[in-house]
Amino acid sequence: MADSVILSPGAAIGILGSGQLGRMIAMAAARLGIRCVVYAPESGPACDVAAETIIAGYEDEAALARLAALVGVVTYEFENVPAHTAEFLAARLPVRPGPSALATTQDRAVEKRFLNDLGIPTAPFLEVDDAAGLERALATLGRPAILKTRRFGYDGKGQIMIREGMDVAESWAALGGAPCILEGLVPFTREVSVVGARSLDGSFAAFDVCENAHENHILALTTVPARMAAETAGEAVAMAARIAGALEYVGVISVEMFHVVDSAGERLVVNEIAPRVHNSGHWTTDGAVTSQFEQHVRAVCGWPLGSTRRHGRVEMRNLIGRQADDWAALLAEPGACVHLYGKHEARAGRKMGHVTRIFPE
Amino acid sequence: MADSVILSPGAAIGILGSGQLGRMIAMAAARLGIRCVVYAPESGPACDVAAETIIAGYEDEAALARLAALVGVVTYEFENVPAHTAEFLAARLPVRPGPSALATTQDRAVEKRFLNDLGIPTAPFLEVDDAAGLERALATLGRPAILKTRRFGYDGKGQIMIREGMDVAESWAALGGAPCILEGLVPFTREVSVVGARSLDGSFAAFDVCENAHENHILALTTVPARMAAETAGEAVAMAARIAGALEYVGVISVEMFHVVDSAGERLVVNEIAPRVHNSGHWTTDGAVTSQFEQHVRAVCGWPLGSTRRHGRVEMRNLIGRQADDWAALLAEPGACVHLYGKHEARAGRKMGHVTRIFPE
Repeated sequence: MADSVILSPGAAIGILGSGQLGRMIAMAAARLGIRCVVYAPESGPACDVAAETIIAGYEDEAALARLAALVGVVTYEFENVPAHTAEFLAARLPVRPGPSALATTQDRAVEKRFLNDLGIPTAPFLEVDDAAGLERALATLGRPAILKTRRFGYDGKGQIMIREGMDVAESWAALGGAPCILEGLVPFTREVSVVGARSLDGSFAAFDVCENAHENHILALTTVPARMAAETAGEAVAMAARIAGALEYVGVISVEMFHVVDSAGERLVVNEIAPRVHNSGHWTTDGAVTSQFEQHVRAVCGWPLGSTRRHGRVEMRNLIGRQADDWAALLAEPGACVHLYGKHEARAGRKMGHVTRIFPE
Repeated sequence: MADSVILSPGAAIGILGSGQLGRMIAMAAARLGIRCVVYAPESGPACDVAAETIIAGYEDEAALARLAALVGVVTYEFENVPAHTAEFLAARLPVRPGPSALATTQDRAVEKRFLNDLGIPTAPFLEVDDAAGLERALATLGRPAILKTRRFGYDGKGQIMIREGMDVAESWAALGGAPCILEGLVPFTREVSVVGARSLDGSFAAFDVCENAHENHILALTTVPARMAAETAGEAVAMAARIAGALEYVGVISVEMFHVVDSAGERLVVNEIAPRVHNSGHWTTDGAVTSQFEQHVRAVCGWPLGSTRRHGRVEMRNLIGRQADDWAALLAEPGACVHLYGKHEARAGRKMGHVTRIFPE
């Protein structure tokens, strides 16, 4: 189906997934007069702000057809939408970003080959399908190296660092025997990300490059702008634009990169692509003229992108697990912009909210 | 009932009214992890972003009791909540702002006496209950003067300007014989408003004074800061704080004032009080650290107030009726923050959305 649909205010979009990203997309859509129908196998934070909710499995074709009848465009808040779901919907109405963005980004090997074909550097990697293959890959890439499942990894799940002396068979078994890649280590100085958007007419606009610090494999702190030469930042944005163009992408795309600084100078290595709004872009709600969520809604509706101008130097801190118990102190802090996702149970490692602080530059 | 309840994130508040003000309160609440139950006689823009909606009349005690059972605190988006409704709810849970704020602001005569008792100037006024009374009041206040119904007026409805030569009996009949006040004209230079908030612990914080231009009695344009001496602006905020204190107010309060500049200098005359968030405060969503909607939610939850710091010089333009048809051009304007309320029919005089522009100061 040729995808040139432009929605009008008052129209509805469907969001696959009911987490906090869907919640913030739905709130941005509401601000622009767009109704949201959240579709997910279970209720979540997005349901509280959606005009309508469909609780059904991603394989439930009757429910998917109901969604398709209710909305003008479908988008999603997570990259593991089953291919069949995306294709079923795409046969009926525009799915933005399109199913090919999902197919490329759901598989680490496919994604890395896609990037390398575009001339974009990634960590060195080899595909690994059994313990013997892991042994061979380790002989090539050396140790330490990181074994990652090709699919369904996030926040450090589905990966294991293989160091000197670790048993190969045990390491292979630790990830359950799923198809993997082995990645060589990149000696990076910092992790950064580009959150950008591509519109239906092919324009691309990115927020300033974000610098990201992780704790226990979960994003803890994003600061903007990232500490890098202006030229390198420009190159980071150009890479993201090239990726989005090659995917004929519509919506917000997030590209995680390693920033390497060594005697040869500065360079960038792409770590992974998220075909969606991204935790490292949460600061844009308070710190930019247009938020990443509004930008996504604009793109998904076929509308022009908004200004990505920053209001100042920005810091965004995630509230993980019990860190959200500090809500009263955070609310009392002058100038702290507090966001809570309405989750009732503060499980360890669970993203409960975030707080943004903006400083004059 | 002693009102010292403090909510926790994850709690729910009730909002009486389903219009765009309720919608924007609900969105601010969601951002802070608070669930909203919208209660109104008919569906409206707020319902699309509420966790739950109760469609029932304000006299429906069974439905009101259902609301009271679902939420921790009740607030409202409009000042004409029936007294009985507010009292029924206040007997069961905190209503913020309290019923006395409604009682004072629902009747123009009561409101003006309340202000004068606080030593706050208003337009000269007389109560008028029949055509003969109108004749006497006109003899005292002169013409032109404005006849206003004591209750239920808004956006120029329920009022008539009585000029030289107009027939008294006809003027009286034009407002349907409802109890009225006759107001003398205030020779003002500009209309301004203070949007402030009082918290449960009695602190008061106001945004910078707003300057408001009306077209056909409907707010067209708000610019901030208002053009007035810093001392006068301070006085405006002090007046609003005094009013809020006297009402033992909890929540956002809006005070419309006339700014009079003449040979005697500058002075302020209060026009009316709105016990709620206010159209002239819509700019705060994009132009201040904390929006008026978040500020209201903070106060209503018993939380500390947020920073009212402005991001720059601000202009907020309402989109009335068919003006919202320009949405595509507005979305394409760099830096314009567009808000649409999701109303389907663009009736004349209907507030369909607004657009905020922020400029360096």
